[in-house]
Amino acid sequence: MATIGESEFDRATRLIDGVGQIVDGWDVGGNANGGYLLAMAARGMAAEAGRPHPITVTGHYLAPGRPGPVTLDAEVVRAGRRFATVRATLQGAGGAILEVLGSFGDLDGLRGGFSHVHGSPPPLDPPASCVELAAGAPALMSKLDVRVRPGDVGFGVGRPSGVAEVAGWFGFADGRPVDPLALLLVSDAMPPAVFNLDLRPGWVPTVELTVHVRAVPAPGPLRCVFRTRFVQHGCLEEDGEVWDSTGELVAQSRQLGLLPRG
Amino acid sequence: MATIGESEFDRATRLIDGVGQIVDGWDVGGNANGGYLLAMAARGMAAEAGRPHPITVTGHYLAPGRPGPVTLDAEVVRAGRRFATVRATLQGAGGAILEVLGSFGDLDGLRGGFSHVHGSPPPLDPPASCVELAAGAPALMSKLDVRVRPGDVGFGVGRPSGVAEVAGWFGFADGRPVDPLALLLVSDAMPPAVFNLDLRPGWVPTVELTVHVRAVPAPGPLRCVFRTRFVQHGCLEEDGEVWDSTGELVAQSRQLGLLPRG
Repeated sequence: MATIGESEFDRATRLIDGVGQIVDGWDVGGNANGGYLLAMAARGMAAEAGRPHPITVTGHYLAPGRPGPVTLDAEVVRAGRRFATVRATLQGAGGAILEVLGSFGDLDGLRGGFSHVHGSPPPLDPPASCVELAAGAPALMSKLDVRVRPGDVGFGVGRPSGVAEVAGWFGFADGRPVDPLALLLVSDAMPPAVFNLDLRPGWVPTVELTVHVRAVPAPGPLRCVFRTRFVQHGCLEEDGEVWDSTGELVAQSRQLGLLPRG
Repeated sequence: MATIGESEFDRATRLIDGVGQIVDGWDVGGNANGGYLLAMAARGMAAEAGRPHPITVTGHYLAPGRPGPVTLDAEVVRAGRRFATVRATLQGAGGAILEVLGSFGDLDGLRGGFSHVHGSPPPLDPPASCVELAAGAPALMSKLDVRVRPGDVGFGVGRPSGVAEVAGWFGFADGRPVDPLALLLVSDAMPPAVFNLDLRPGWVPTVELTVHVRAVPAPGPLRCVFRTRFVQHGCLEEDGEVWDSTGELVAQSRQLGLLPRG
């Protein structure tokens, strides 16, 4: 079991003096996964701010990320008592890849208080009864232990469910626990929900991805659900919820993407 | 009827060489409304990028905005074929108020293509049968023509509905049409949905607000609904949908806020 700090994810998101590496294998069809890139940037931003956790982070995707060296320029815009706000640019060899704005803080210090939860984790059969995305799937899946609800993967064999929803279990292949930073990756790690509509699957370029990290996940696999409610004028939104093993919501995400281009 | 360019909203968001004014009256309890500030910043960012419309804009709120002069520093991060990405800081006399990251483009150029809509405008009685927020309400309401669903305003008399939802009609008091820029204001213009829970109403500071503008609104009043599903650990999310008079979704919003402090 890999530990936080000593895992594939940690090695692939490490920045030393603002210099890191897009590591081969965290991609979908050659383009680095958007959640992976966001996590790498947020890791550097949290370090710059001296705060342990991302609270709300937004990335705008400027160009595909290819394996190779990257640099992160991060600037603390304001350091408040509760949160620090940071903006950053992730640059690759060919120019800017990702522009990020985020607020960082300490989730442990926010614990408790009034609670209201209107929702629940998606109903899922045990991981062993779900579909492992591995052979023939995007390279990214070799780093993860993602198990998708059987009814949500028909798009892979030309039988989309007709409902723009994908739910499943998330863990790392090497057993690394999911911490708040990794929730940024989780929020972009499942096949696009829109694949289950009557559209030809293809790359769904993300314009913008925002993740709210709401709590530190308890140990164990996470239950995730992603839904697309509005596809209009070439754009779509995808909303995600990530729940931990105790049934607490730990992250909410929303992205604006472009319709699959075959 | 005020027109776009010659209305109270236009005068209150105008920037000349990056210098503008937070105009008194666009506030809630002395603090400038967050959607108003986001619209002012986005107006300057769109101009900087030479693109007509905000597509997805995220603001992080750093300090309350008080009436007086402000400056906007906007920088185009990338100008692509479809979108231009811009980051900006809105500064007041006391320092930075708002940090913004957005992508801008031309909604008219995106029209058409595959469509999938899972949802519908909130059911609302005609505006005349809804509750006008005017006398005794926040100053902001004098600039707007907001009519809230009668069942959603009980919090004002100590009878919250128990459902964290507020729906209503939106227009400008001076009759200005709602364009894509104004949708940023719309997304923060209703009383917080969380007021309808069993909490003492108070100021709900916004940490971050993201708005996706999905289409140019058709003429006529807009139907809006805002819901809070998750209040945990001192934070809450509020999700908004804005629909135009033809029944098209024109904006989606989400904000992360802090629990009301009395």
